Amino acid sequence: GLKEDPKKYTKMKERLVGVSEETTTGVKRLYQMQANGTLLFPAINVNDSVTKSKFDNLYGCRHSLPDGLMRATDVMIAGKVGVVCGYGDVGKGCAFALKQAGARVIVTEIDPICALQALMEGFQVLTLEDVVSEGDIFVTTTGNKDIIMVDHMRKMKNNAIVCNIGHFDNEIDMQGLETYPGVKRITIKPQTDRWVFPETKSGIIVLAEGRLMNLGCATGHPSFVMSCSFTNQVIAQLELWKERTSGKYEKKVYVLPKHLDEKVAALHLGKLGAKLTKLTKDQSDYISIPVEGPYKPPHYRY
Amino acid sequence: GLKEDPKKYTKMKERLVGVSEETTTGVKRLYQMQANGTLLFPAINVNDSVTKSKFDNLYGCRHSLPDGLMRATDVMIAGKVGVVCGYGDVGKGCAFALKQAGARVIVTEIDPICALQALMEGFQVLTLEDVVSEGDIFVTTTGNKDIIMVDHMRKMKNNAIVCNIGHFDNEIDMQGLETYPGVKRITIKPQTDRWVFPETKSGIIVLAEGRLMNLGCATGHPSFVMSCSFTNQVIAQLELWKERTSGKYEKKVYVLPKHLDEKVAALHLGKLGAKLTKLTKDQSDYISIPVEGPYKPPHYRY
Amino acid sequence: GLKEDPKKYTKMKERLVGVSEETTTGVKRLYQMQANGTLLFPAINVNDSVTKSKFDNLYGCRHSLPDGLMRATDVMIAGKVGVVCGYGDVGKGCAFALKQAGARVIVTEIDPICALQALMEGFQVLTLEDVVSEGDIFVTTTGNKDIIMVDHMRKMKNNAIVCNIGHFDNEIDMQGLETYPGVKRITIKPQTDRWVFPETKSGIIVLAEGRLMNLGCATGHPSFVMSCSFTNQVIAQLELWKERTSGKYEKKVYVLPKHLDEKVAALHLGKLGAKLTKLTKDQSDYISIPVEGPYKPPHYRY
Amino acid sequence: GLKEDPKKYTKMKERLVGVSEETTTGVKRLYQMQANGTLLFPAINVNDSVTKSKFDNLYGCRHSLPDGLMRATDVMIAGKVGVVCGYGDVGKGCAFALKQAGARVIVTEIDPICALQALMEGFQVLTLEDVVSEGDIFVTTTGNKDIIMVDHMRKMKNNAIVCNIGHFDNEIDMQGLETYPGVKRITIKPQTDRWVFPETKSGIIVLAEGRLMNLGCATGHPSFVMSCSFTNQVIAQLELWKERTSGKYEKKVYVLPKHLDEKVAALHLGKLGAKLTKLTKDQSDYISIPVEGPYKPPHYRY
Repeated sequence: GLKEDPKKYTKMKERLVGVSEETTTGVKRLYQMQANGTLLFPAINVNDSVTKSKFDNLYGCRHSLPDGLMRATDVMIAGKVGVVCGYGDVGKGCAFALKQAGARVIVTEIDPICALQALMEGFQVLTLEDVVSEGDIFVTTTGNKDIIMVDHMRKMKNNAIVCNIGHFDNEIDMQGLETYPGVKRITIKPQTDRWVFPETKSGIIVLAEGRLMNLGCATGHPSFVMSCSFTNQVIAQLELWKERTSGKYEKKVYVLPKHLDEKVAALHLGKLGAKLTKLTKDQSDYISIPVEGPYKPPHYRY
Repeated sequence: GLKEDPKKYTKMKERLVGVSEETTTGVKRLYQMQANGTLLFPAINVNDSVTKSKFDNLYGCRHSLPDGLMRATDVMIAGKVGVVCGYGDVGKGCAFALKQAGARVIVTEIDPICALQALMEGFQVLTLEDVVSEGDIFVTTTGNKDIIMVDHMRKMKNNAIVCNIGHFDNEIDMQGLETYPGVKRITIKPQTDRWVFPETKSGIIVLAEGRLMNLGCATGHPSFVMSCSFTNQVIAQLELWKERTSGKYEKKVYVLPKHLDEKVAALHLGKLGAKLTKLTKDQSDYISIPVEGPYKPPHYRY
Repeated sequence: GLKEDPKKYTKMKERLVGVSEETTTGVKRLYQMQANGTLLFPAINVNDSVTKSKFDNLYGCRHSLPDGLMRATDVMIAGKVGVVCGYGDVGKGCAFALKQAGARVIVTEIDPICALQALMEGFQVLTLEDVVSEGDIFVTTTGNKDIIMVDHMRKMKNNAIVCNIGHFDNEIDMQGLETYPGVKRITIKPQTDRWVFPETKSGIIVLAEGRLMNLGCATGHPSFVMSCSFTNQVIAQLELWKERTSGKYEKKVYVLPKHLDEKVAALHLGKLGAKLTKLTKDQSDYISIPVEGPYKPPHYRY
Repeated sequence: GLKEDPKKYTKMKERLVGVSEETTTGVKRLYQMQANGTLLFPAINVNDSVTKSKFDNLYGCRHSLPDGLMRATDVMIAGKVGVVCGYGDVGKGCAFALKQAGARVIVTEIDPICALQALMEGFQVLTLEDVVSEGDIFVTTTGNKDIIMVDHMRKMKNNAIVCNIGHFDNEIDMQGLETYPGVKRITIKPQTDRWVFPETKSGIIVLAEGRLMNLGCATGHPSFVMSCSFTNQVIAQLELWKERTSGKYEKKVYVLPKHLDEKVAALHLGKLGAKLTKLTKDQSDYISIPVEGPYKPPHYRY
């Protein structure tokens, strides 16, 4: 630690060519350091690669939300009312997972664009207050705090399931729940607690103590989609190493160049038996896109 | 015209505050003019608003592809093999439309990221050559040329349907088809032709002469989604007018600011009975996003 | 007619080997005649073949409901609230069609088993009274009368669409609508009328004058699924002719034997590129099912 | 046992009013005893209640197949090729579960009607031989034996998953696998074995030793759907007891009367927030169906 060697990180920095980072929080810190002029080496933000944000978040959660629900509670999802708070990439994955398992899904959103996307897929968009007594399964996916408060939980159906697959464990008001006067916690099994309110004798099931339920109650995302995320990391590291003396990367935060993002995807196609079409020279000229890519402009949304 | 008044556009320019443009082609021209220094007024690109590109293209085509197919051919989509060339926004809409009507869908792609997205939704990704004799319905959505050539068409099943919902009428090699020695065109009804090859006596059905089939064979996108596109136009015009003397907009191409893009969505929520959640001040501070939006960073992909 | 020749049908009967019938109504009459002893020849009920009831009704309507809606109104189905009255085979087809086009679907039912099936697929089950002011598209599929009454229609949203794909044109209370004091009918185009109520000046859109909207506004079911229905007819006729002297069929109503029902399906597999697995003799013995079928007991529900 | 008291069952029979049975095998035995004249008491077959066969088998497996796959292997289902052998109720549930999780699904069938149903939902229908080297996840659902033989398994991809959710543990040729010369079994964890073939060094993952994978690797069907099955049992027992002296039930096998089948469903609607519509007297007369049901004829297929 720093105690034994106060210059540990300064010395480490000497030999450090650069870093790559894939979490939203970590990336936020790096951009702050860049803004403050305290970033001591180049950094590659792989969190915002398409093959990270649109894969891990979306397809990963579509898989691991039902996985966590089933392992923790064995509840039948079909026929139930699922309430998904937030319809970003994680929320989209969760809403589809519940819908496709046969639930009726209601979405809450602050962003009108995401709300309109939810509607176009047949999801009802309401506020949590509107549906608090109707939902059977509540999932927070927002990345914000104070989404489901203890006052909401008190009004829920007996044995409503409350869980978080967003980011921080304060999406669900665990503190409010734990300190609610007279509330009783019954641990059904590790990571699965029933909390009973004194007035109603009615209880809710909270998964993973409000922390990420796919990690607490299941095994997280499956390896195939994590392979996309980690390939981004590896490619970023290789890129930093290759360019370590070229001066290509300054002490700034970069996103992975799109041709490398595309390479991550390309490396995963073979496993799934896919065959890509090749652009001809003539077609390439016609749309002003190189034969070997990148195939999309930077702002393309996929 | 210019003949009567050679200074027509120069005079018009004097009174012109700015333009807004929503087509990919039109926007391309504007960026070229900006690059050449020949852009004489501010321009707003509404083609790249989220409420345009991710709505009109995706949800519009999901609606109007089956509409065009049904009106033109009355073919049962369920049980058929659909081949969708391209898996951008238009291709995504088409692939889902066919899948949800009960078809088995195969996608062709040049872009490995889009290809991996297709796979994650259960679509097979192959080349056109692999599936040319297996498909029942072929749809081009690429925005490129020379996608389905006459040599492909010759090898298709009898009465395979070939159509384009992409952009240009050269996605399908109509010229090659029309000039194929001995080919015979039988007009079944306007916009629906059967082309019979002399060697096989077998024929394919080409919709809308290779032009946009949802316009040629149906009535285009439905009004609700076009309302999103046109609201972008109106808001852009209002913005240009409001800022006509402020100097906010120079003789450049701008995209609509995100808060206006969000406004377009917000204006469409009421019709669908949606209720938005409001960010609290506390939540707003926590995630550093203004209470009134915009809610996402510019690079967010939705 | 009978006037010219009062013995027309008696004479016809002499040469008549038998009949086959595929409509619910026609079949009902035949069973009544059998009960009354007035059935003069053998009859085959093909309405209750699996390849009729579970194909034509279900997959046919899944295709032709959106087809009719699009041709009549060009309405965007995505984002809308669809109310499907009845969740039999026709209702199932309609509910899925709307859901898959992006609508939120609410089902009304009298039968608790069908209601529970709807719930297991994520549809909300309520009464028409509960949702009359919430729905955008109302579809009757019940085969019963008096489903949507004028009093319901008065309370609907402006421009709500009301249509019938069930059986009789009295599923929607057209008489009540037509005779409602002060109501005004505006024909938008043939088979598409707007009816405006005097109190509210608000109007609803009624398709095909309350008759079958897929026939009135579109072209009915697509030929592939009708081929299943008509193959049943042809096979029934061939069977009656083959057995015309054998005494196999008495003056009763028969359903098509299951091996012929299976033959109808088998005849349609090739077109869709399917390959069947063959039962081995050993497997056949093990489950006591003949190698060549029929493969299911009579009560099997598919 | 019988050793201590050879008349145990004869004495038991004296006090036995009747039995109810919900498994396919058990029901088969009862019908054999009835045919042989050895059935000593009335029996109610609840296996063929709609609320059993169309719920437990279909919706239960749709839930518990992915549950078992995830718990046993953590495999990402999206993007994979699933091969479902058999498309009865269990097969339908499995095929939909895999499709909705993002897999591409291929079905094998012997019955042309079920095969055509699979095609209408967009599944490809081929033989196991056609797809043995293409599949990632193989599931048997047939209730027959010798479906996946060791010779198939030898040709599969490395780490292909092979499992059974049908009935008997001989759907997969476990004996052939176990006795294959030089095969090596590596137990990854209980109920999850990798079997490596000597020639290829390539291995497959077999779940639950070929027995029911949803029981071996997960916790079986969720309680809500089993409640439907067990309510059938309870209602059958109550019915037998109520009619114990009335002579209504002879020493035969009966299915539960449809009004009781409907009652099972009705008892489960409240939990899911559903509201049934009531038939009016007038409507009841019109379609000749009692106001209080049963609402469908015995042969209705749901």
